[in-house]
Amino acid sequence: MVGVDFGTLSGRAVVVRVSDGAEVGGAVHEYAHRVIEERLPGTDVRLGADWALQSPEDWREVLRHAVPEALAASGVPASQVIGIGTDFTACTVLPATADGLPLCELPELRDRPHAWPKLWKHHAAQPHADRINALAERRKETWLPRYGGRISAEWEFAKGLQLLEEDPEVYGHADRWIEAADWIVWELTGVETRNVCTAGYKGVYQDGGYPGEDFLAELNPAFAGFTGKLGREPVPLGGLAGRLTARAARWTGLPEGIAVAVGNVDAHVTAAAADAVRPGQMVAIMGTSTCHVMPSDRLAEVPGMCGVVRDGIVPGLWGYEAGQSGVGDIFAWFVETSVPEPYAREAASRGLTVHEHLTELAAAQKVGRHGMVALDWHNGNRSVLVDHNLSAVIVGQTLATRPEDTYRALVEATAFGARVIVEAFEAAGVAVEEFVVAGGLLKNRFLMQVYADVLRRPLSVIGSGQGPALGSAIHAAVAAGAYADITSAAAVMGRRERAAYLPDAGRADAYDRLYAEYRVLHDHFADGELLHRLRAIRNEVTD
Amino acid sequence: MVGVDFGTLSGRAVVVRVSDGAEVGGAVHEYAHRVIEERLPGTDVRLGADWALQSPEDWREVLRHAVPEALAASGVPASQVIGIGTDFTACTVLPATADGLPLCELPELRDRPHAWPKLWKHHAAQPHADRINALAERRKETWLPRYGGRISAEWEFAKGLQLLEEDPEVYGHADRWIEAADWIVWELTGVETRNVCTAGYKGVYQDGGYPGEDFLAELNPAFAGFTGKLGREPVPLGGLAGRLTARAARWTGLPEGIAVAVGNVDAHVTAAAADAVRPGQMVAIMGTSTCHVMPSDRLAEVPGMCGVVRDGIVPGLWGYEAGQSGVGDIFAWFVETSVPEPYAREAASRGLTVHEHLTELAAAQKVGRHGMVALDWHNGNRSVLVDHNLSAVIVGQTLATRPEDTYRALVEATAFGARVIVEAFEAAGVAVEEFVVAGGLLKNRFLMQVYADVLRRPLSVIGSGQGPALGSAIHAAVAAGAYADITSAAAVMGRRERAAYLPDAGRADAYDRLYAEYRVLHDHFADGELLHRLRAIRNEVTD
Repeated sequence: MVGVDFGTLSGRAVVVRVSDGAEVGGAVHEYAHRVIEERLPGTDVRLGADWALQSPEDWREVLRHAVPEALAASGVPASQVIGIGTDFTACTVLPATADGLPLCELPELRDRPHAWPKLWKHHAAQPHADRINALAERRKETWLPRYGGRISAEWEFAKGLQLLEEDPEVYGHADRWIEAADWIVWELTGVETRNVCTAGYKGVYQDGGYPGEDFLAELNPAFAGFTGKLGREPVPLGGLAGRLTARAARWTGLPEGIAVAVGNVDAHVTAAAADAVRPGQMVAIMGTSTCHVMPSDRLAEVPGMCGVVRDGIVPGLWGYEAGQSGVGDIFAWFVETSVPEPYAREAASRGLTVHEHLTELAAAQKVGRHGMVALDWHNGNRSVLVDHNLSAVIVGQTLATRPEDTYRALVEATAFGARVIVEAFEAAGVAVEEFVVAGGLLKNRFLMQVYADVLRRPLSVIGSGQGPALGSAIHAAVAAGAYADITSAAAVMGRRERAAYLPDAGRADAYDRLYAEYRVLHDHFADGELLHRLRAIRNEVTD
Repeated sequence: MVGVDFGTLSGRAVVVRVSDGAEVGGAVHEYAHRVIEERLPGTDVRLGADWALQSPEDWREVLRHAVPEALAASGVPASQVIGIGTDFTACTVLPATADGLPLCELPELRDRPHAWPKLWKHHAAQPHADRINALAERRKETWLPRYGGRISAEWEFAKGLQLLEEDPEVYGHADRWIEAADWIVWELTGVETRNVCTAGYKGVYQDGGYPGEDFLAELNPAFAGFTGKLGREPVPLGGLAGRLTARAARWTGLPEGIAVAVGNVDAHVTAAAADAVRPGQMVAIMGTSTCHVMPSDRLAEVPGMCGVVRDGIVPGLWGYEAGQSGVGDIFAWFVETSVPEPYAREAASRGLTVHEHLTELAAAQKVGRHGMVALDWHNGNRSVLVDHNLSAVIVGQTLATRPEDTYRALVEATAFGARVIVEAFEAAGVAVEEFVVAGGLLKNRFLMQVYADVLRRPLSVIGSGQGPALGSAIHAAVAAGAYADITSAAAVMGRRERAAYLPDAGRADAYDRLYAEYRVLHDHFADGELLHRLRAIRNEVTD
């Protein structure tokens, strides 16, 4: 079984044994163009602020390189591979022709920014999202509460409206507006599908349909037919999208005709890899940012969640998503911009990274000793405030404050942010039974312990370092018929260590006091009044 | 004429020409023991948290070394010197015998911390200050509003009460509780005097008397006679304290019998050096912290000022003092703890200090571009909140925030803090006619321009790099009879450049918007609620 995870900067393929989920080989291929933020490749066409594009050919290259290399590394004969599954960043979305050709690959549209795929973190459609939200709220659209009361500028409708209004000609050429998650499956199978996950979380597909034509027409008359570009009825996760084409078989070195699973999102597919697809199992994928996904048998309106989608993680359950827009990013920013040279020197002399060195110093402190509390809003707040225009607050620095103090305060701030999310779910009657961590920050044991103490609950951790790719392989196993459903496949092929970190009662009590102060600050600045004014002042100043 | 400035780490002597104030020679002598914070010299006696002591012998060494060296450097024959004036940090205060011997120089008391001089920044008497303030407020003591409603833990009464209650035996030995400013004059003249300035600002001497016995007895019955240790009626500034003794003439190399001016405080004496002793001339001495002094013909109760003292800067006028407890200290803290190596490397390669490099980068920005606003409370807030237990707040950082952004926000924060003080004076009906800057931060032209823009007024700057020592020489010239009064002496010997920095209307308008946000933050956190709770949590945690 092969799973392929398309990330922000590279794609990773793993070869996984169906019988036990063992990862027997893997390979990574970096995108040649990485993230396109300055100018279109091979042109002088400059992009605007907050733009972020990618190149479809970079994604194909992952199929051509990472997949055969992973296979070679595994030593498994290609003939033994019975299926392939993929996951993608989302909402990463592109305009395409009716037969799936990305518009940026039409020579006459190559130099049009809007012809290119918009990466998830393209944030230039905020004004469009604002209009969509205002109108939906005014019209009391029933789908709005499913997204915590606000949809994101990152999603299909905001990006699509931006496309229409900024380049109507390209919009006109776009027969399809398709998630990269589905486009790559189309490349593999020759069959166009839409998966339930991106359709629901990013495409506002709820209760069997997209937002109505009258709603869209009220946004812009020319937008009325937009959902016609979104394709057919979504296919359940774990479903069979089609069979590997001859062309894709040549690219990948895999047998023609093997099962190809429907597309999925990197975060959501990780739940399967952690064998955490039962109600109340919240999986936090902690990296530069954190995404929380959780199946539940209850439908509720959780304020500020990213979305709740029927069958969105596994068929038969409601799938909840929430997120923290800055986590590892904040620590990386701090290390890059705020740590003086003696720390770097000391870290180097001890063979540690600066992160490790700071972590060690911070970990030696008792809770509350630094006298600070921070709001982890350096990159805005996804849940529960859903506001990209917030910014950070740090309170309590003195002339005695050292870098490790602030570093620790930032680590704690992200843990407090996670607690706000967990409490929002529980307050809405959606129980969080188990908190499962996946992602790159797992390797920081101090940070994990802070989360266990702050959340006052045991943390489980995923048993794989390649969660998304493993999850995609699990979905492929289901699509290929090796298992009846995702839950049973995950139980065999996925893995996690339960209660890997236990809360310490004394520290948890001490954190309760700091968390109370975090809530005071959080609630004070949540209205965004002051922070929005500062942002507005900043944005008015041109260099 | 010789002026000697006793600072926190060293003493500086300058030789000044009476006819025009020209500084013809100078020398600095560093204190051997600098600030005593860990243990008593030559002993294993450890000091508590927030203690800060000094050694009287270090001060005598300034007389023995800096004065003759300054004289030698000037080439002026000793016989031409007609007077000497001194200024000191304050409130720096010591217990002494009736004939002026510091108790720490009695062999049997050498190992008693309370026998040593307490430096101004000894902050261990906060609980005592709190009790004094609470009682004074309850009793509606008439002197309390003269100090903005709260006296400082740094001052004579708080430190004296700490002495009594923590070491009553040393308290009993202390015939005198005397400012170092007066003690050094006693050393020079053999005559005990008390100057109006420290008596008023640090000794709570108002309307011809100290706080009454019944008030003191209510604090602690044994404290009732405390003011008996404070000596006789204060002597006006610029007055003649006495004549140089034979012993002091041997130390200094100056002629026996020359005029010795009464003591003074480093900040207040600087007003004379800047020729800024007329009503409404506010002199800001900007260094690690900032002290504002201003004569006025009006008595008013300015909320949160440090003090108003009749004749406290020049005879015949009310002298106001206010302060910012962290200014240059904050920038130094930031450079030391928060600036990464590439900046240090770039600065070094350009032959700049990190401060200069950051300043250049910050200066290139337009107002508001960094999107931040900060509260400059890293070392608490002296005016207008009078609260040592506040701490800093930084709002608006994002993942795009660079060190120069935060540096600039901190510079601006201190300028906003200065504006709060100026506005408090004006709101109380005490006009600020001219803002005059002295002190080490003068050399940062960007910072000066920020202050001019934020204050929306021209800045004058002192014309001497040795303001306090020059001011002391001016006072000595008055004491020696060379001028009729401080104002006429300052007009000849002092100097300042008027309107050295002019506000730019566009930037001033832009700063008005940021200042409005500073006020919002300031007023929100001013009650100290959250900041005090964080401080309490910190203080409860023992390492």
